[in-house]
Amino acid sequence: MFDKIRVVLVNTSHPGNIGGAARAMKNMGLRQLVLVDPQRFPDPDATSRASGADDVLANARVVATLEEALADCVLVLGTSARDRRIPWPVVDPREAADKVLDQLEGPAAGPIALVFGREDSGLTSDELQRCQFHVHIPSDPAFSSLNLATAVQVLAYELRMQSLQRQGQPTKMHKIETTALDNEVPATAEQMEQFYAHLEQVLVEIGFLDPQHPRKLMPRLRRLYGRIHPNLVEMNILRGILTETQKAIGVQASGARRR
Amino acid sequence: MFDKIRVVLVNTSHPGNIGGAARAMKNMGLRQLVLVDPQRFPDPDATSRASGADDVLANARVVATLEEALADCVLVLGTSARDRRIPWPVVDPREAADKVLDQLEGPAAGPIALVFGREDSGLTSDELQRCQFHVHIPSDPAFSSLNLATAVQVLAYELRMQSLQRQGQPTKMHKIETTALDNEVPATAEQMEQFYAHLEQVLVEIGFLDPQHPRKLMPRLRRLYGRIHPNLVEMNILRGILTETQKAIGVQASGARRR
Repeated sequence: MFDKIRVVLVNTSHPGNIGGAARAMKNMGLRQLVLVDPQRFPDPDATSRASGADDVLANARVVATLEEALADCVLVLGTSARDRRIPWPVVDPREAADKVLDQLEGPAAGPIALVFGREDSGLTSDELQRCQFHVHIPSDPAFSSLNLATAVQVLAYELRMQSLQRQGQPTKMHKIETTALDNEVPATAEQMEQFYAHLEQVLVEIGFLDPQHPRKLMPRLRRLYGRIHPNLVEMNILRGILTETQKAIGVQASGARRR
Repeated sequence: MFDKIRVVLVNTSHPGNIGGAARAMKNMGLRQLVLVDPQRFPDPDATSRASGADDVLANARVVATLEEALADCVLVLGTSARDRRIPWPVVDPREAADKVLDQLEGPAAGPIALVFGREDSGLTSDELQRCQFHVHIPSDPAFSSLNLATAVQVLAYELRMQSLQRQGQPTKMHKIETTALDNEVPATAEQMEQFYAHLEQVLVEIGFLDPQHPRKLMPRLRRLYGRIHPNLVEMNILRGILTETQKAIGVQASGARRR
């Protein structure tokens, strides 16, 4: 699906950044790289920073003008760090990803370009006026200029995030509820109560809890374990610890000394 | 607010990545960098790639162990690219940002660490078990390993995006409706109708539109301009073009030849 998206780097000075951009693209499933008048390419620094994205570099198209890079594109977005005199539709990276995906999912899907300017001076006003939208990465105004490869990474990341979310795909490797590890069912309220009873019994047996002066110890422990919300495997571990503790202090686990 | 967030880089091999991480942090308003047993630091490559974030490098704390880096932290998130045997709560970068901001906004705000592992092998299992959450950047499984500095950039970007959104701050420099440039009010339906009438008249005058065989030209133009939804300034420009066209072809703009 991302085959229709091309990353266009204009007049890049440092070949290392071309390599870094290629790696960032491939990390997020983008493959189409177009270089407009690069100052040094191919170059060993590009290959070194690509770090395995050599195929993206090898397939990169080198052209002389931005016009040539954009000729067949139906949607063009250009990154812009600086305030411009002519107001223009500006989107943040997440909105940019949505514009791109809307276009790709629409009836008239065609090539789409994400254009990145020079390391030191970005895109010129003329170049920016060839873009339907300007993408602004919300950096700190006091230090706003991102490295070229990391700027590519941010936009490529948002494309992949938004695309995965639209497709209902997970955005992380395991889809684990943070409250239920081991993919196990969480303990029921009844099992929690049995655990609290067992815990209280053991705390009395080890002399930590004085039933005459309980000092809100059990409510505090309930709050703690309630927050953890253990699953069944974990619950068995916790109960096992209690039972072993009882064995260690020489108490029958039969509950004979239960209050 | 981000002063409580520290970026912890573990056993980094390439000082250039330390510099790149410092720049990515400063771009997004993060300043606290902790280096656990870096292989080369300080180093000219770090300074060069920091590209103005020298202050972050100068203030970086170098420690011998991860334990030392995390000692006072109340929340620790560690980046993890690979599948691990022990299931663990995994969050994507956006969820990670929300965890961090929830903690910062809560009553028990304390230092928070974002931990990044070695370039070649990431964090060890022991190191990952010191983290409450593992952050997974949703990269292409076929090419999943991000450059260290770009990984820092993605997390720092999400922190800033989510923080700006929570504060109701704009996430881009201009807040311009994409349908209304120049911050002008959009044209009214009546003004649009006057424009369409004027346009039709000129198209007839220049011989492009034959009133006997209109070929759905006006509906197509209505759809086009309706999509643009011009504002008043733009409308005046469009009307001006029509008037000038009429002058150029020697027609009185009085509407004398209006059908």
